[in-house]
Amino acid sequence: MTDQPYRDPTAPVAERVRDLLGRMTLGEKVGQVNQRMYGWHAYERNHSGHRLTDAFRAEVAAYGGMGALYGLQRADAWSGVGFADGITAADGARVADAVQRHVVENTRLGIPVLLVEEVPHGHQALDGTVLPVNLAVGATWDPALYEAAAAAVGAEVRARGGHMALVSALDLVRDPRWGRAEECFGEDPYLAARLTEALVRGMRTADVAVVLKHFAGQGATVGGRNSAATELGARELHEIHLAAARSGIRAGAAGVMAAYNEFDGLPCVAGRPLLTELLRERLEFDGIVMADGGAIDRLVRLTGDPVAAGALALNAGCDLSLWDDCFPRLAEAVEQGLVAERTLDTAVARVLALKFRLGLFERPYAPVEAPGAQRSDPGELSERIARASITLLAHDGGVLPLAPSARRIAVLGPNADSIAQQIGDYTAPQRPGSHHVTVLDGIRSAAPPDTEVTYGPGCELVGGDLSGVPEAVALAAAADIAVLVLGGSSARSGDTTFDTNGAAVVSSANPAGMTCGEGVDLAELCLPEGQLALLDAVAATGVPVVVVLVQGRPHALPDLSGTAAAVLSAWYPGPWGGRAVADVLFGAVGPEGRLPVSIPRSAGQLPVFYNAKDHRYRGYVDQPATARYAFGHGLSYTTVAYAPPRLSRARVTPDDPTLNCRVTVRNTGERPVRETVQLYVRRLSGGSSWPRVRELRGFARLDLRPGEEADAVFAIDADTLASVTRDLGLAVEPGELLLETGPSAVETQGARLVIEPPG
Amino acid sequence: MTDQPYRDPTAPVAERVRDLLGRMTLGEKVGQVNQRMYGWHAYERNHSGHRLTDAFRAEVAAYGGMGALYGLQRADAWSGVGFADGITAADGARVADAVQRHVVENTRLGIPVLLVEEVPHGHQALDGTVLPVNLAVGATWDPALYEAAAAAVGAEVRARGGHMALVSALDLVRDPRWGRAEECFGEDPYLAARLTEALVRGMRTADVAVVLKHFAGQGATVGGRNSAATELGARELHEIHLAAARSGIRAGAAGVMAAYNEFDGLPCVAGRPLLTELLRERLEFDGIVMADGGAIDRLVRLTGDPVAAGALALNAGCDLSLWDDCFPRLAEAVEQGLVAERTLDTAVARVLALKFRLGLFERPYAPVEAPGAQRSDPGELSERIARASITLLAHDGGVLPLAPSARRIAVLGPNADSIAQQIGDYTAPQRPGSHHVTVLDGIRSAAPPDTEVTYGPGCELVGGDLSGVPEAVALAAAADIAVLVLGGSSARSGDTTFDTNGAAVVSSANPAGMTCGEGVDLAELCLPEGQLALLDAVAATGVPVVVVLVQGRPHALPDLSGTAAAVLSAWYPGPWGGRAVADVLFGAVGPEGRLPVSIPRSAGQLPVFYNAKDHRYRGYVDQPATARYAFGHGLSYTTVAYAPPRLSRARVTPDDPTLNCRVTVRNTGERPVRETVQLYVRRLSGGSSWPRVRELRGFARLDLRPGEEADAVFAIDADTLASVTRDLGLAVEPGELLLETGPSAVETQGARLVIEPPG
Repeated sequence: MTDQPYRDPTAPVAERVRDLLGRMTLGEKVGQVNQRMYGWHAYERNHSGHRLTDAFRAEVAAYGGMGALYGLQRADAWSGVGFADGITAADGARVADAVQRHVVENTRLGIPVLLVEEVPHGHQALDGTVLPVNLAVGATWDPALYEAAAAAVGAEVRARGGHMALVSALDLVRDPRWGRAEECFGEDPYLAARLTEALVRGMRTADVAVVLKHFAGQGATVGGRNSAATELGARELHEIHLAAARSGIRAGAAGVMAAYNEFDGLPCVAGRPLLTELLRERLEFDGIVMADGGAIDRLVRLTGDPVAAGALALNAGCDLSLWDDCFPRLAEAVEQGLVAERTLDTAVARVLALKFRLGLFERPYAPVEAPGAQRSDPGELSERIARASITLLAHDGGVLPLAPSARRIAVLGPNADSIAQQIGDYTAPQRPGSHHVTVLDGIRSAAPPDTEVTYGPGCELVGGDLSGVPEAVALAAAADIAVLVLGGSSARSGDTTFDTNGAAVVSSANPAGMTCGEGVDLAELCLPEGQLALLDAVAATGVPVVVVLVQGRPHALPDLSGTAAAVLSAWYPGPWGGRAVADVLFGAVGPEGRLPVSIPRSAGQLPVFYNAKDHRYRGYVDQPATARYAFGHGLSYTTVAYAPPRLSRARVTPDDPTLNCRVTVRNTGERPVRETVQLYVRRLSGGSSWPRVRELRGFARLDLRPGEEADAVFAIDADTLASVTRDLGLAVEPGELLLETGPSAVETQGARLVIEPPG
Repeated sequence: MTDQPYRDPTAPVAERVRDLLGRMTLGEKVGQVNQRMYGWHAYERNHSGHRLTDAFRAEVAAYGGMGALYGLQRADAWSGVGFADGITAADGARVADAVQRHVVENTRLGIPVLLVEEVPHGHQALDGTVLPVNLAVGATWDPALYEAAAAAVGAEVRARGGHMALVSALDLVRDPRWGRAEECFGEDPYLAARLTEALVRGMRTADVAVVLKHFAGQGATVGGRNSAATELGARELHEIHLAAARSGIRAGAAGVMAAYNEFDGLPCVAGRPLLTELLRERLEFDGIVMADGGAIDRLVRLTGDPVAAGALALNAGCDLSLWDDCFPRLAEAVEQGLVAERTLDTAVARVLALKFRLGLFERPYAPVEAPGAQRSDPGELSERIARASITLLAHDGGVLPLAPSARRIAVLGPNADSIAQQIGDYTAPQRPGSHHVTVLDGIRSAAPPDTEVTYGPGCELVGGDLSGVPEAVALAAAADIAVLVLGGSSARSGDTTFDTNGAAVVSSANPAGMTCGEGVDLAELCLPEGQLALLDAVAATGVPVVVVLVQGRPHALPDLSGTAAAVLSAWYPGPWGGRAVADVLFGAVGPEGRLPVSIPRSAGQLPVFYNAKDHRYRGYVDQPATARYAFGHGLSYTTVAYAPPRLSRARVTPDDPTLNCRVTVRNTGERPVRETVQLYVRRLSGGSSWPRVRELRGFARLDLRPGEEADAVFAIDADTLASVTRDLGLAVEPGELLLETGPSAVETQGARLVIEPPG
């Protein structure tokens, strides 16, 4: 072994890297930062299973190896991979191992390939369990539940031979016009940080490395336009957009993905201030930076030349490319002097270090026995997330939970009976006979015997065809209650799914009706006119209307008081989401979700995030500037009273900032409640930056029976009180704060805390 | 004189400053950076004229002088000053001199007070000539005309004893929801820079010093909210928001005003990176920085204490405060060690230097003979600007100019007959009998004899009262043509104006109907529903409808093809604007205005500025991302053909970048035209930042008779080709460009220019 120290598993990683790097040609180095090929181009399905393609063999040969292979198991409309030609769970490990074996056995140095899979909310592969979208996860405010789900999903990935998961985590919904709002945990840095941490931990439990998407600021692009420019000052970046990255890195994320969007004049993949000065030097990140798909190719618009584009990205701090034609030409960049070979070595070293750390040299193949064989059922966890995410926005007249006397229920609306429209973007085709549950299915199953459940879509998801409205109105008029399922859809034209009898159906009754998802940004933000017309027509019958929003973004809502007796957001609740919705409607569980985003009144008032700078704005002349429903808001089926918070100390210093903040909460109603108690910090004076209205810095779960009272106790520490300093560090700065507690960002009570200057 | 060198007019300014500063107590120094008092609190009207108030005398005594006095002659609803108690043109010099005499004769050092007047579009004083708002000036694309008007207005200010004018210049309409959009020259840095330069030059002609409002980025606040946070990266700031300041400084502006808005986490008045590192060090500005009114007081939200707030602003780089209670306490700040006396000295020195440069020590009083006595009539210049600003947005069917056969004209709409609603914000009460001209007045005067002109407002400016619609419809139905005057209003409740018979009337028929102006931001951006309903009802008569928009911002417009035969924007055209509108309608002149801003389709697609970063966005799923009418657009009454541009050289170097760009333009129609030929630069590759779609870098005026052809020739130089470098300088960077010419930002033809690397 001594002649090949890099093969010695007992040697330190740094030493193995140094040794291996020293053996590599320039071409082999370039091969290690190359992730050019689509994974689904690496295999073909043949009569006996799958075989590796000539293109794959040629790619490995050309670079003397392969840094990483993206999406070997990905299936969806975009890749064009479905059940007919894709890799199922049963095939997954076998195909992955064939790929790996080819690379290990047919290259001079035998460096294993890193198998990278797309896992934004479940493994985007045939048979992968779909979780509710991240925005729904955000509405649960439940990191522990999400960590369990991430572990279960990670186990699926690992069992199929995947090493690394690309996960959505870092983007925040700062402009809900953005079609990828569904991929975000919400608008708030603290909530996103807690959930990112849970995600990384869960995946690591399953031995899956994580690349956090995306770095940085992509949820705040100009106009909510996908891949456009993000305009932020450095303080806004630090105060809002880095928390999730910080937490994810601390939890052990193996990589971050440099985003498409421009930041301070350059695409993130070309931004050395972002990728090197900030991420490497300030945040001390030592994992890999992967470019977003094709993002480096786009730099040719700037450089005029692909070789220079690759050099620009490498010099900025990208270590691994994705699908581009620039990084594969880095040898030319080195030869032309556009990049130092030393810089390339650094990137290669990071990729190799990752492979060593993951044990790929020792265990290149899929585990024979899937780790976590006794793991929880991921489908059940998906459904639990859906249930915990359902957020009751408005409730007049006590229509919920549905009374047993409601024997005739009309289920209406374009989102009432479509699996494809409730699972969100970045999903694989769903297998026939999966027993998925639409809202209609869920209500039919959960309704008491003798209940008559009728159904009519009423209108298309978008478009002006109102021919179904009269039928819907007639059904409503004949019912005791109408459940109107409205919202959006990220179902792509060409996606296929299957009905419960196993028959293939096109994902959407209206394939052109996609209103959300990557590249599908929505200017006006309101529900389509047809849906609003349907709502008005149904409401005009006088039958109580419960609106259920199945959506991947916070649609702007008009004032629905007087129109809807209740409004719930179910987000995209995933394949079994209909059961979760029914459980809440019938009161098997209460609504537990809390808004992870502000619900706007209109696109005209954007942005509406709760943690705006505190300029005491009096509002637009034609509209308030405040949200329709505030961040943190979510009603329950009972009433809850909050006492003012009590602090264990009223004065602290930066050196000794710990205290407890205790708030007594009482269930004053008739039903049990799972209450999410929220802790906000509001700065009254001091600090280096202009203060925000308030900032979430903690939350706690209390289960309270009717009449029960309990305390939520928040341990306040330096993290809770930290603010961004003048030189962009984090510190506890002297001044005066309010520590506020309450059930939402607009229903808080505060206690004053003085942070005295040190000494 | 040797014992008082500061009184020696032959001594260099720096020496006079040094000498004077050396004689001053701390209290006197604080007095020189103090501009606390409202000017209208310095005098009272009594039976014989005006007398100085005790409050004024006390203020002078308390500080041993007075740095500056703001708005001595200001009159408007906000100050509460009108004809009954204000200062007229006839009184102006006398009152100013009384103030000055008191200061000079009752202070130890006899330092004259600087008299600062509000001159955003004309002197905001009784009898001051009102110019069209800056947005209308922007639509003229005519710096020479504006320079003449600025000189005429400046002469009015100077004749009344004013020394320094606060002028709106630096803000750009990057978000038209902002109520102060009317104060901007438009969305484009180059156009604003040219007009700012003209403004400063014009004022200097009249011996009036200029403070440029506002620095920096205030036109790009989050949500278009007044005084809120501006989020920009450093490159966006440099590429877009500094050009006007650069030009104004180069033209000799005496000061800039630090804005209310937050920039990178701190209000501009507290931003040392902005006021000192950028403005002083990088832009080499040596004039004064004045804080916006009360802006320093707002810093108490941050510091918790007014003394610390004053210190923060002074340390950041403010030299002169406005209406605040913090700078007057700077002596305490010095004593507490929060600010070095040396820093205060620097600010005082700048104020003193300005006073020396203006000759105030030698000529403290108003000129006996107003300079520029043979100056142009400012009212005539105001009307010329109005005429040149009228922008024809759409024109179907050749309805314009109005045919002599149109003998019955119905003039309709809530903006058809209100002077107050056509003059904009920051205006003084208008004197009875001023012969101002509304659109209705103008049409009545300009219509051929025997034309029947009827009038009905139809609806209120805002609000749902449609009771006037039937009358308007009846008038339209009985007419050959309907001129429908819609738009917005910045008339403040309580403003008074006078009808042409001299009777006082409240400014607005609907005092609550203000939709624009400072603090009046508009979320939805569209015309109020009542106005759109009126338009639909009038259009339904089948009578051709000409829509005239009287507005201070670019309202979002629906697709009006099929509804309106023509659409014009007259902006807020000023007191005589109705005559200008009529001249265009009847064809006495053609429409010459070109859009200085993009006209959006809706608030949902904001931002829509033409010079966005070039990310080839495919649009929102529900709406294009492009403007309804593009920047630079404006139809004429003829047709114009552009040849492709021709360059004198196709390759240049950064060291030798000059060339000519020539474009042949032909009037191919039947009427003369004044054509604004526009030059844009579009970067194809190279440069330090991601390129924009295109950027205006020149424009030229051609007057063409029918059939006439002429060339516009642009002298391209380093300024034309400069881009912001990596270290935020300006340089000609190698790469490839298109030099594009055309009649708007979306109708260009380009010629390729290579900038070769130097050497």
